[in-house]
Amino acid sequence: MKHAPKSSDEFEYLKWIRSELPPASPDLEVGPGDDCGILRVEKDRLALKIDSILENTHFVLAKPGVRQPSTMGPAATPEEIGRKAVTRCLSDMAAMGATPSTCMVSVTLHKGAPVKLRQDLFLGVSKTCATYGVNLAGGDTQSWDGPLSLTCSMIGLMNGVRPALRAGMAPGDVIAITGSLGGSILGKHLRFEPRIAEGRFLADNGVSAMIDISDGLSGDLTRLCEESGVRFPVGVDIAAEAVPVSKSARRLAKLEKAGAERAMHHALHDGEDYELMFAVRPGRWKKIVTEWPFEAPIRALGVVRSLEKGQPLVRILKKGEPEALQVMSWVHQL
Amino acid sequence: MKHAPKSSDEFEYLKWIRSELPPASPDLEVGPGDDCGILRVEKDRLALKIDSILENTHFVLAKPGVRQPSTMGPAATPEEIGRKAVTRCLSDMAAMGATPSTCMVSVTLHKGAPVKLRQDLFLGVSKTCATYGVNLAGGDTQSWDGPLSLTCSMIGLMNGVRPALRAGMAPGDVIAITGSLGGSILGKHLRFEPRIAEGRFLADNGVSAMIDISDGLSGDLTRLCEESGVRFPVGVDIAAEAVPVSKSARRLAKLEKAGAERAMHHALHDGEDYELMFAVRPGRWKKIVTEWPFEAPIRALGVVRSLEKGQPLVRILKKGEPEALQVMSWVHQL
Repeated sequence: MKHAPKSSDEFEYLKWIRSELPPASPDLEVGPGDDCGILRVEKDRLALKIDSILENTHFVLAKPGVRQPSTMGPAATPEEIGRKAVTRCLSDMAAMGATPSTCMVSVTLHKGAPVKLRQDLFLGVSKTCATYGVNLAGGDTQSWDGPLSLTCSMIGLMNGVRPALRAGMAPGDVIAITGSLGGSILGKHLRFEPRIAEGRFLADNGVSAMIDISDGLSGDLTRLCEESGVRFPVGVDIAAEAVPVSKSARRLAKLEKAGAERAMHHALHDGEDYELMFAVRPGRWKKIVTEWPFEAPIRALGVVRSLEKGQPLVRILKKGEPEALQVMSWVHQL
Repeated sequence: MKHAPKSSDEFEYLKWIRSELPPASPDLEVGPGDDCGILRVEKDRLALKIDSILENTHFVLAKPGVRQPSTMGPAATPEEIGRKAVTRCLSDMAAMGATPSTCMVSVTLHKGAPVKLRQDLFLGVSKTCATYGVNLAGGDTQSWDGPLSLTCSMIGLMNGVRPALRAGMAPGDVIAITGSLGGSILGKHLRFEPRIAEGRFLADNGVSAMIDISDGLSGDLTRLCEESGVRFPVGVDIAAEAVPVSKSARRLAKLEKAGAERAMHHALHDGEDYELMFAVRPGRWKKIVTEWPFEAPIRALGVVRSLEKGQPLVRILKKGEPEALQVMSWVHQL
């Protein structure tokens, strides 16, 4: 055991875990810490993911006659919960450029939960698998004196495409993003479209690094910098006017009786938009923009710079003036 | 939706799930309901498994100064819990004849759980992976207002060996088993050795069907009959004197102030021994017995017969007289 994590957040824990990993075979090309692990099998690579969603953390189960405060968005139907367990993994597959193949789902229910609840959870899983052409290879259902949780594990095929990792950004790269951000609590976190084809296209076009925005722009951008900066320290400058503030972010700010600044806050720090953020050489960026065949918009946010001592990892330019962008997005407290 | 499950046990639920599965690609050769799913990737097959262990169902977390009643066996250390999450999947891999390759583990902790608890859980996982040569490709750690649970998902390689399924028994097959049974609550359920090499050897020697005994002999034998009986109904007769009653089963009976009959009850119905039970053509059985290179004992329990109308699936012969063997082993109530 090398050192104990100093704080209780998941990043410190991940650092410690990486120092304590079991020996891996050369077939495991990417281990814990990226959107997916990568395992070589014969001539192809598999992308591997496990992810859990928990009641009252990732969803609130809808109950008849109970309405949530409007700023907390809608409670989730069991089918939406089943869907979310699968689509979160699909989004991680997208962030590697993998084609999802097969999943397994473990469900833990409250003891005495109605039969209809577990049926509808399963149908949410099953229909989502059908929609995205994913096999369901197995599962596990149990009950206990505890809240509802679902764990999905997924396998994707790289089909010869080089996986897009979190590490790989270099100074001069363009930072870009699909879709728009903020206010996903109002419904998008349950109904988002994982950017599978987009991720595949981007990986195929040789992006330097990619991540799906699950914790929030400020945190996930910081993570890209940290992962990419292991060999050569890098930071990112983004332009405030380039941040794609979503309609939901504006609507949420309005519900909070606040204005444009609050909407921008939601776009910068809210999680669960499941959009793809990536870095790419400028020449390739031009090609991507020109050939982009998808409905989802795509836009440049800023550039990667080499990080000088004492500089913040992520800066936001407001009217050309850089200021440090604080990480105010989701950090799991353990 | 075809029909709602009539009862609340997991077998009814599994039947319903199988009727509601999403369309699968031809690559998915075995779907939900066996020890593992089987996915074809290029020229090889992968065995896939997901499994959750829950606090107070699969283990009791050891607390300083708290001792359990002796018939409940020892509480588990965090390292033992981490180990069990992985070894249960390893046992399912063994039951297919697969060689375990890579796993992922999702951990859900009580909020505010001590750092040492999650470290020791992880070290239990990590050391077990190292012991069995399994890669750890990823994971997920979260906390909530609920009990402790771990979900392990695992990938194994068939390396050209034909997977041993639960379906495949034919009349005349010998039913046989590794190791001994009963009383695993006294400690074996935390410290069992998954029969990986044994499973591989058995699959390689063309067993007709195989399962790992997780729920108990009576239940798992019934399941083998049900799964194998889809095309042609089969039953099994086992000889009472052939049932390998373990020392733990005898010790548990003694702690309960009972005798040999109670020890036999434990051997027939207790779960979590993680021994392999299989059916095999008599000629192949002879070869297996002759060439068996492992320390773990192996023995014949009985034979597979064609099932006539009204006959019980599983019968136990006591001094040559057959009687129905009731399923009194573990059934998950949902």
